[in-house]
Amino acid sequence: MKIQLALDRMTIEEAISMARAVRDFVDWIEVGTSLIKEFGIDSIKEIKKAFPEKIVVADIKTIDNANYEFEMCFKAGADVATVMGVSPLVTIHSCFAVAEKMNKKVMIDLLNTSDEQKESLLQFKEGVFCYHVSKDQQEMNGERLLGWEVPTDFSVTIALAGGITQKSIRDLSTFHPSVIIVGSAITKAIDPRDAAFEFKNIIEQLEGNVNE
Amino acid sequence: MKIQLALDRMTIEEAISMARAVRDFVDWIEVGTSLIKEFGIDSIKEIKKAFPEKIVVADIKTIDNANYEFEMCFKAGADVATVMGVSPLVTIHSCFAVAEKMNKKVMIDLLNTSDEQKESLLQFKEGVFCYHVSKDQQEMNGERLLGWEVPTDFSVTIALAGGITQKSIRDLSTFHPSVIIVGSAITKAIDPRDAAFEFKNIIEQLEGNVNE
Repeated sequence: MKIQLALDRMTIEEAISMARAVRDFVDWIEVGTSLIKEFGIDSIKEIKKAFPEKIVVADIKTIDNANYEFEMCFKAGADVATVMGVSPLVTIHSCFAVAEKMNKKVMIDLLNTSDEQKESLLQFKEGVFCYHVSKDQQEMNGERLLGWEVPTDFSVTIALAGGITQKSIRDLSTFHPSVIIVGSAITKAIDPRDAAFEFKNIIEQLEGNVNE
Repeated sequence: MKIQLALDRMTIEEAISMARAVRDFVDWIEVGTSLIKEFGIDSIKEIKKAFPEKIVVADIKTIDNANYEFEMCFKAGADVATVMGVSPLVTIHSCFAVAEKMNKKVMIDLLNTSDEQKESLLQFKEGVFCYHVSKDQQEMNGERLLGWEVPTDFSVTIALAGGITQKSIRDLSTFHPSVIIVGSAITKAIDPRDAAFEFKNIIEQLEGNVNE
């Protein structure tokens, strides 16, 4: 289980400082949508430059203009870029075509997708499927990623996102996610390094390979 | 019927030059999603600074983090910002709350919304409802905004977008749009100023108020 650190609602400099503080305990670094929309593609370039050894995820949330946006992200150094599952299928196909050409990965954000859409997205077997309770759903409705059901025949790579804490990760591990996406439980912690260390430890315990 | 000039896939400088060339014939200026994602919020600031007299539309395509993104757009000078109709409803509510507080407008992009979603969005009567065939649907599938049916009881403000040309605008006028969004038919024309002038003339003809 990989930890993806989501960096949002901060400057590029703050994002780099934050990631530097916790780099030992996180696997993937996400350039949040808010960074991309506020500072543009430089946010991806600068974060990849600072962490060339990490998988960098550009949370570009593409919903149209797939070739342009995905090529832009990958050229800027992203290893993974996100497309919305609610997009027209032609957009999702284009994202995968660009990713294949450039030897990169696509994460499909399942936010607000219907069951029918989820079913149809299963054709993209090489994608990372991100079950996602959005910031607005969390902050306005108090929703959390809990009690969701990932179909048991869902044989694809799964990521989970949405207010994940040191407490909820234990329940969520029953979904066998490959990636858990953590934002404020690390970035808003009094000691982010401590919080990230705690996540890493819990995951090692859950995976039963604690080094003693 | 207003003309919204969509500026996409160019630098901020090119966008300003383009808008300057056609400013006499367009009403609203759209900072395209590609400009925002590539150059960040400066794209909105600089375009509003160059055209303070115009309605500036930030095509931010919000699908989460509504407060943050909408405040950011409006503070940067946008008069209108876009939210995806496929977003969770809580996100759309937040967009309208921010717009109301800041005395600005929301455009709801209906791209890929289900009939059920469109129906539910009708509650946002003060919004601008944008019927939209996306770039990818146009470029990959050859789709155009033609033959669509806007419900006749749709008493809200309507915008139309998606490969609109001097030819198709005549058919589309039967939908009584308040705003028609034109991108490449102007920006990729051999003479953009001529093309914009032509759109303006056609609209004046359609509205039956040609000055002779």
